[in-house]
Amino acid sequence: MASIVQKFGGSSVADADRIRRVAGIIADTYIDNNDVVAVLSAQGDTTDEFIRKAAEINENPSKREMDVLLSTGEQMSIALVAMALEKMGLPVVSLTGWQVGIRTTADYGGARIKRIDGDRIASELDKRRIVLVAGFQGINKYDDITTLGRGGSDTTAVAIAAAIDADLCQIFTDVEGVYTCDPRKVKNARKLEEITYDEMLELASLGAQVLHNRSVEMAKRYAVNLEVLSSFVRKPGTKVREAVSAVEQTKISGIAKDGDVARIALLGLRDEPGVAFKVFRALAKAKINVDIILQSIGRDNTKDISFTVARGDMETARSVLEGARGAIGFSDMSVTDKVAKVSIVGAGMMSSSGIASLMFEALYDAKVNISMISTSEIKVSVLVDEREADRAMQYIHDKFFEG
Amino acid sequence: MASIVQKFGGSSVADADRIRRVAGIIADTYIDNNDVVAVLSAQGDTTDEFIRKAAEINENPSKREMDVLLSTGEQMSIALVAMALEKMGLPVVSLTGWQVGIRTTADYGGARIKRIDGDRIASELDKRRIVLVAGFQGINKYDDITTLGRGGSDTTAVAIAAAIDADLCQIFTDVEGVYTCDPRKVKNARKLEEITYDEMLELASLGAQVLHNRSVEMAKRYAVNLEVLSSFVRKPGTKVREAVSAVEQTKISGIAKDGDVARIALLGLRDEPGVAFKVFRALAKAKINVDIILQSIGRDNTKDISFTVARGDMETARSVLEGARGAIGFSDMSVTDKVAKVSIVGAGMMSSSGIASLMFEALYDAKVNISMISTSEIKVSVLVDEREADRAMQYIHDKFFEG
Repeated sequence: MASIVQKFGGSSVADADRIRRVAGIIADTYIDNNDVVAVLSAQGDTTDEFIRKAAEINENPSKREMDVLLSTGEQMSIALVAMALEKMGLPVVSLTGWQVGIRTTADYGGARIKRIDGDRIASELDKRRIVLVAGFQGINKYDDITTLGRGGSDTTAVAIAAAIDADLCQIFTDVEGVYTCDPRKVKNARKLEEITYDEMLELASLGAQVLHNRSVEMAKRYAVNLEVLSSFVRKPGTKVREAVSAVEQTKISGIAKDGDVARIALLGLRDEPGVAFKVFRALAKAKINVDIILQSIGRDNTKDISFTVARGDMETARSVLEGARGAIGFSDMSVTDKVAKVSIVGAGMMSSSGIASLMFEALYDAKVNISMISTSEIKVSVLVDEREADRAMQYIHDKFFEG
Repeated sequence: MASIVQKFGGSSVADADRIRRVAGIIADTYIDNNDVVAVLSAQGDTTDEFIRKAAEINENPSKREMDVLLSTGEQMSIALVAMALEKMGLPVVSLTGWQVGIRTTADYGGARIKRIDGDRIASELDKRRIVLVAGFQGINKYDDITTLGRGGSDTTAVAIAAAIDADLCQIFTDVEGVYTCDPRKVKNARKLEEITYDEMLELASLGAQVLHNRSVEMAKRYAVNLEVLSSFVRKPGTKVREAVSAVEQTKISGIAKDGDVARIALLGLRDEPGVAFKVFRALAKAKINVDIILQSIGRDNTKDISFTVARGDMETARSVLEGARGAIGFSDMSVTDKVAKVSIVGAGMMSSSGIASLMFEALYDAKVNISMISTSEIKVSVLVDEREADRAMQYIHDKFFEG
C-alpha cells in the first residue's frame, strides 16, 4: 500500500467522457490498494470563459474578485469527478482549497503556497476514501480565496504530496512523459524513463512545457518523487527525482528550443569599470529579465556587450537603452528577434568532458552558425538563426542519441 | 445611516446588463450613506445547467457533491457583481458562505441555517465596503459545503439581516411587490404597501410565489423588516412586518389560488370513534400532508370524510387507503384533481365580522359552486372546480377591493 497524489490538467477533464477516463485511472490506483489524492484543474476552456464573462462587465477587475470567480472552475471539476467515482461505487470526497487548508501568501492571482494543514486529507484517507482536491487555489491570511497563477495545479499536487509524505506524485498531461527533444520537431525523439530535478528545471525554463518550474522546485525541496505521464495512454511516464540510477545515465537528458528570445547588442562601449552595471541597472529598473550575457574582450579601449531578453521585452529594452545612451555611452545598438536558443541539458555533463564539443560538432555538421554560447553545470545553450533551430536540434539529437 | 440587506434572485443577475442594473441599485443604496449587504443567487439557468452536467456523469449523484457543484453558481454571481461595482469605483468585497460563517445543519441539499458568525461582515462594513454574499449556501459541522434548498437565498438574506441587526431586508424579485391577487389572473389587482408576516405566510403557502415561507418565518421570529420589490422598476414595494399601520388596514390583504390540490372523499365510514384517526395515520405513515379536512355529520350510522392533498400525492394516497380499506372500513372512495383552492387572507378578519359571508356572496354572484370550506383566524379557503377558480378570484377581488 502506497500513498499516491495524482494531478489531472484541464484537458484531461474537459468533458464527460474524459472525466470518466480520469475516474477510471483514479479508481484503478485505489483498487490496487493505494491511498489516492487527486488534484484537478478547471475543465478545458472554463477559465477562458470566466475571463470573457468578467471582461464583459469590467475590463480591469480586481485580482481578488477574479480569484473568487476563477476558483469555481476547479470546484466544478472535483464535484463532477467525484460523481463519476460514486457511480463506480467507490467512496470519495471532494475538497476545495480552503477545506484542505491550503494557506498561501496574500497575493491574489499569483499566490504561493505557504503551508498545508494535512489533517482533513489524512482523516479522509484513514476512512479509505478517495480524496479529490481543487487545484490552483488556496486561502490567504485574510481568509480570502487566492489562485496560484501559472502551473498552480501542479504546485498544489506537489505541495499535498509533501504535506502527506506521499510515495509518489503523478502529473498526468497530454504527453506521455519527458522526451529527449520535442517529438513534433525531431524524429526519433525518445521518452526518458528518468530525469533529475535539476535537469527538469533546466528543460522547463527552456520551453519544454511539461512541468512548471515552481512545481519542480518544490518537488526538489521536499524530495517528492514525481512522475510525468499521459492521461490518454496507460503507459509508464518519466520519473523525476534527485538522482537517476547509473544504468539509465546518458550523457544528456534532453534538447530544448526556446523561440521566445531576442538579442540586443551594444557596440563601442568604453572599456572601463561600471559600464555593464549601467546597462543592466537600466534594464532591471524597467523589470526586464536578461538571460544570456556576452561581453567581448576590450580592444582599442572599446568593448561590445550583447544579451538576450524575452521577445515581449525587446522594444521596451531598446527604448530604455536608447534613453540611457548618454549615460551608458555606446556607438551603436543592434536588435533582432530572428533568433532562437537551443540547449542541451544533462546532469551527467558535470562528470563527462567533451559534451559541449560534441554539440558544436553537430552544429558544424548541420552548417548552423552560433551567435552566442552560454554554459552552466548541467546545460549548454547556443543562440542561432531561428530558421535553423529545428535543423540544429535534429543534428544534435542524432549526434547524442543515434551515434 | 441605516443598514440594509438586499437580495437579488437569479433572473436579476442573468446577464451582464442585468448585473449592471443590480450593481446600480446597490450603489445608489450605498451612496445614500447606508451600510449595504447584498445576497445574490446563481445566474439565470446556471443551476439547471449544473444539474444537466451532473446527470451526464451520474444520474444519481450524492447530495454532498451536488452541493459542491451547485454552490459555485452563487460564487460566480458575487464575483461578477463585485466587478461591476469596482467599475463604478466603489469599495466592495465578495464573500462565500463559509467566509461569512453561515453554519447549517448537516443535511446536504436542504440544510437549515443554525447560526451566522457576523464578524467578517461587520468588519467589512466598518471599512465602509459594500459586502456581497453568496446566497443559498453554508457549511455544516464537518466543514462541508451545504445548500439550503428552495427559497435558500431569501433565507440567507433574512438570516444575515437578523445577525447584523439590519434595519431593513429588501427582497428584489421580478414582481413589484405583494398584490391583492395574481395580476396575471385578475384585472385591477393592487400592490399592497404593507402586509403582516402572518398574512404573508398564508399567502405564500397558498401559492403566491413571491417569498418562500422559510424566509418569512425567520423574519417573523427575528423581527426583521422585509420589503418585497422589483429589480427592474425603481418603485417602493410591499413592506412585510409584525403589524401594519391602522390607516392601511383593509378587510383582507390578498386573494390566492392554489392549483396544486386534489380531493379525496371516503364515503360510508362507520360513525364511531377512531375512524378519522385510522384514515390519517395511514396517510401520515406514507408521509402525505393533508390540508383541508371535512367530516360530514353522521347519519344512518355512517359518515363521510373528505380532504385535500397535493396533486403529486394523490395516487399514493389512493393506494394507501385502498390497502387499508379493510382496517378503515369505507364503502366508496372518490378521487379528483380537477379542483383548485381559492383563499382570502387578512389579519383584519379577526376583528371584523362578515368577511366570509362577503366571499360567499361573491361566489354566488359568480355562480361558482363551493365543494369544501376551511377557515382559520386570518384565512378563508374554498375548494372549487379548477375551471372556475380564476372567475371566482375576479369576483372576490371586485367584491372586496372595488366595492
